[in-house]
Formats: sequence, C-alpha cells, structure tokens
Amino acid sequence: MKLSRTATLAEVGEFPLVAAITNGVALGAEVRVGPGDDAAVLAIGDAVATSLDVLVEGVHFRRDWSEARDVGRKAVAVNVADLEAVGARAAGLLVGFSAPADLQVGWVLDFADGLSHESRAAGVSLLGGDVTKARDITVAVTAIGSLEGRDPVLRSGARPGDLVAIHGRLGWAAAGLAVLGRGFRSPRVLVEAHRVPQISYGAGAVAARAGATSMIDISDGLLADLGHVAQASQVLIELRQDAFEMAEPLQAVAAATGADPYTFLFSGGEDHALAATFPAPEAVPPGWLVVGAVGRADDDHSGVLVDGAAWESAAGFDHFRSGGSARATDARSAANASEPRG
Amino acid sequence: MKLSRTATLAEVGEFPLVAAITNGVALGAEVRVGPGDDAAVLAIGDAVATSLDVLVEGVHFRRDWSEARDVGRKAVAVNVADLEAVGARAAGLLVGFSAPADLQVGWVLDFADGLSHESRAAGVSLLGGDVTKARDITVAVTAIGSLEGRDPVLRSGARPGDLVAIHGRLGWAAAGLAVLGRGFRSPRVLVEAHRVPQISYGAGAVAARAGATSMIDISDGLLADLGHVAQASQVLIELRQDAFEMAEPLQAVAAATGADPYTFLFSGGEDHALAATFPAPEAVPPGWLVVGAVGRADDDHSGVLVDGAAWESAAGFDHFRSGGSARATDARSAANASEPRG
Repeated sequence: MKLSRTATLAEVGEFPLVAAITNGVALGAEVRVGPGDDAAVLAIGDAVATSLDVLVEGVHFRRDWSEARDVGRKAVAVNVADLEAVGARAAGLLVGFSAPADLQVGWVLDFADGLSHESRAAGVSLLGGDVTKARDITVAVTAIGSLEGRDPVLRSGARPGDLVAIHGRLGWAAAGLAVLGRGFRSPRVLVEAHRVPQISYGAGAVAARAGATSMIDISDGLLADLGHVAQASQVLIELRQDAFEMAEPLQAVAAATGADPYTFLFSGGEDHALAATFPAPEAVPPGWLVVGAVGRADDDHSGVLVDGAAWESAAGFDHFRSGGSARATDARSAANASEPRG
Repeated sequence: MKLSRTATLAEVGEFPLVAAITNGVALGAEVRVGPGDDAAVLAIGDAVATSLDVLVEGVHFRRDWSEARDVGRKAVAVNVADLEAVGARAAGLLVGFSAPADLQVGWVLDFADGLSHESRAAGVSLLGGDVTKARDITVAVTAIGSLEGRDPVLRSGARPGDLVAIHGRLGWAAAGLAVLGRGFRSPRVLVEAHRVPQISYGAGAVAARAGATSMIDISDGLLADLGHVAQASQVLIELRQDAFEMAEPLQAVAAATGADPYTFLFSGGEDHALAATFPAPEAVPPGWLVVGAVGRADDDHSGVLVDGAAWESAAGFDHFRSGGSARATDARSAANASEPRG
C-alpha cells in the first residue's frame, strides 16, 4: 500500500504505517523471524528470541492512576509476554528510561523496584539500557530469550481442524481503565489488572512443548489479535461465545456503565493473555480454555467469527486512531476532558 | 550511594541514578556482561551481544536541524557503535518509534529510509519493534549481535603498559551542534557530523581480533569515556596532546566562537569514535591513532591525564545536568532561548 506523504499518522493508522516501515527491509540469512510476529528470532548458536515494547506516560499509563512500581512491573510483563507468545524463555532485559529532569528520584527508585520485582518473577536479568531526558516518561524495554532448541510458535501456523484455546484473563485491564476513566478506583482487582497485567510466566513454553501450532500475545484485544493469526495463517477462526467464562467483576462494571461485558472480553487489550491453536484436545495443556476451532478461510476473507457471525466491535486498538476505537486503552483519551495534562 | 528520594534527577545526575537502578540487580548464570558496559552479553549458544539506545526529539535531535532520514541513520549508527565497542558484529535491530498523532507520514517514511540505509551499511537486519503515540518523537533502538566466538572487549581490560589508540573523528559532532546553536549551517561537514555520526563498521571486531584489551564507544566525550575505562580497569590513562590530529574545521569553528578547539576534541561526544587499549605497538590495527599509554593508578585515583595534568573541561555530558556541562550536545539547551519549542 502506497501511503500519502502528507497524510498524518492519525489518518493512516498504525498497521499500514508499520507495514510501510518494514516493507522491503532486507533480512539476513540468520534471521528466522523478522518483523510481523510477537518476537524476532535470530539463529545465532541456539536461537535467540527478542522483542521491544515502549510505554509512554499519558498513553500507556498515567502517574495519577499507576504507581511507579506498577509501571516498572508492567514494562517487564508486557515485553516478556511477547517472548512467551513464540514459546521462548526470556533471559535478559534492556531498559531505556526517559524522563523529565524535574522528576523526583523516588519515582525512579520505585520504578526500578518494580522492574526488579517483576524480572525476578519472570526469571530474567536486567542487562542494561539507556537513560535520557524527555518531556514525558517513556520506557522502552527489550527482552531477549532462548527457544531452548524448540521451533518458534508463530502466528502463521494455525491449520483447519485445530482447536483455539486461551490462557489468562481477558478484558480485565480494559475494564479497569474504564473504571479509572470514570473517576472510580474500584473494583480494585480490575484497576490492578490495568496497572500490572498478570502473566503466567512459562505458559508459552509449555504450550510450545505441547505442540501449539500458532500462538499470540493478546495485547490489542482477543478478536483483533486472533484476526492477526487468521490472516497470517489464512484460516477462519470460529469462536463459541458460551465457551468463555465471564468474570464477575466484568459483569459488575458492564452493568454499572451500560456496556456489554463481552466488549471488554473480546476487544479489551493489555491483559497479555495467550491465545494458541492446538492440533487435538489432548494437546491442550492444563490451564488453557478451549474457546473455538480453526476452519478453512472463505473465498472472501480469513477472519474471526463469534457463533458464526462477525462481532460488531471487533476493531482492535490503534495508537494513532484512538478516537475511532470502541475501546479506551489509551490513558490520554480515556482521561476526562476536564483533566488536561500539565 | 544512597539517594534522597525527594531529590530531582537534575540534582542527582545520570550516573548515580543508573547506579541506583542497577545496584543489586540479580544476574543469571548465562549473563556474561550485565549493566555498566557498552553492550550486554548473554551466553546463549554463541554469545549474543545486545544494546539499547534512545533518541528523543528536542534532546538528541531537532526536526528543524536534522532531516528525518538523518535521525533514522543516526538511530542505527549510535546503537551499532555500542556493539562495535565490545568487538561484536551487529546482526539485528529492534526499533521503538513514538510520535505525535499529527506527525506527517512523510517524516516517518524518510526516517524509515534512513533506518534502512544505515542498516544496510552496518550489515544489520531490522527485526521488528513497536510503534506508539507520544508528545515528542522518541526512537528506541536495540541492536543484537554475535561475538563470533571471541571474548567481549570490555572497559575493564586496560593494563599498565598498554597503548591507547583511537579510531574515528573526535569533536566534529559537538562542533556541528555549536554551529547550529548559533544559527549557522556551515561548516557543512560539521553539521553533517552532528546529524549522522560516521561509523567505520567492523572496526571494533578488527580491534578485538588484533588483541585490544579494552574498548569503549566515545559517546560522552573522549576524556569522560576514557575515564570510564580508567575507573573500570583501575588504571591511569596518560594522553599526549600533540599525538592528536586537529582537523581544520574544528579550528575554524573554535576561532569563530572563541573556543579552544581541544575542548571539542577532548569533551565533544556523539561522534561514536572508538577508543581502545592494545598490549603493544604491533597490535594496533591500521587506521588507529596511538594517543597515549596506560599507567598504574595513583594511590589517590584512577583517571585520565593530558600531558601529565587533569584537563580542566573534562566533564562528560549528563542528560539531567546539561546546564553544568562545558559542552552543548543537548539540542534543547543548545537552542536559542528565542526559539521555544511548540
């Protein structure tokens, strides 16, 4: 797709922009997985998996909604989740930290404490990074890990006949953000889910060993991310709505806000649950919930159906188009208009 | 060092802050080089070297002083330079790109073109990354490379009796920034040196093969960075001022601004030349300039001397303390006060 040079990012959107950036990029012989999957894989000795994520103040977190320690923990969790999603074991982290010069040291120490805490939980070592000045706090994290001799589990491996299963929470972080955006602090479990996603470290490697044919980290929302799997695998993914377990706190928030709780569940991102496909029921590891099956792509399109139909609010989050999203994962746009940032 | 929790980053400075963050970090058995050197090394199969750098608009570049393509090239160059400095060969890059939603696509395409151009020159593959919204353009780059079976060349390996040699330009980028800060666009070679450092890709690996005992990427300024080597190696580094070649453009700018040209040469950063120590004259590869020798550390201190004395403007650049620096590598502080940023 040829992009207009004078269009704004808001007009073009994130995915075409990424495609434009990565289109035509030369990949060396040792690159096993380049742009487009959750993590990149380099065949240097044993394969090394690596991924980079950026968290920006006012976009991914707000200092009045999240403690510094939460931001540190989240920075580790969201990035290691990408390595989990290719079946790798994260080993090291690099952290780029940018902040205004008038930030209090205490904030940074708490942030570093969160980094350390979550790194220990994930079994990774902080390898280094960069510290620089910026107007907003910005955290860039790169995780590097090992595939331990396994093949990476990619988005492109789903085959008709596979089962679709998920591992982890869906919609909690988005519901927590909706709560915060309305000026509330409870249900606390949801607010905490927004602040720090709860990752079952090692679940991706277990799924890889069990024979998962495709896998993805759910960061944009289940339907959007399964849409990436469907497209990469050229299959149709058919979900059964009654296969999902609707958590009580999601129901409570949906009732209070007049929302459909399945909107949180199907299109809420940032919980970093895993979705994977498995060739047979006996291959699905404990702790995974089977929610659908893989079918052949239509002549018209590959995609995701819920009970045989397209889900109406299926659009995932796009950083440069938050106004058009049914979701509110953008901390800045979720803020009340009466709360302009300083 | 125990930091006051209520001090600001400006009051504490970058290095104590980094020390506070990395102090007590647990390192796994496979971590060969953790925080504190130019690149981190993980012993996964063959050793993988990796490093992360962040470039922030208004801090590392200004859109009115650098073209988007230059920023893309610089982002690759400064990061690969870190891998060069441990003797590794860079293989892959991850790029985190943050920008305001109203940025024109053309800027991003030009930026990506710069990334591609410099990646080809450096022989690296763009592996992936992240794109997100932010108030200022922020570029986080992680390079991952191979040591090709060699041991990493660290800051801590300099030994008394070694020779000190440099490879690449010194002071050009800082002089270019000084020129821009005064509203001029020439000498053009210096302005270009600020916009894109000129890296001799592969020089670090050549030095490693030749037996370099220590090596560093000169990003903060020669004396500041050799100070890091002296401290890590617990040695005294003794430079001879007449061993350096003073480039004509530096002399011209110094004459025009009333500055000492050696201030650019000794304390100007961002050229990303390499400094290394070698055990004997015959070990110094072609293209390297011998500028001093390694001696025993005094009882009092390890450090760097020029012609037997401390150089008065030896302080390197500190991101949170730009006001106190003799240099002007901070694009924001170097800007005219009459040009407030939008």
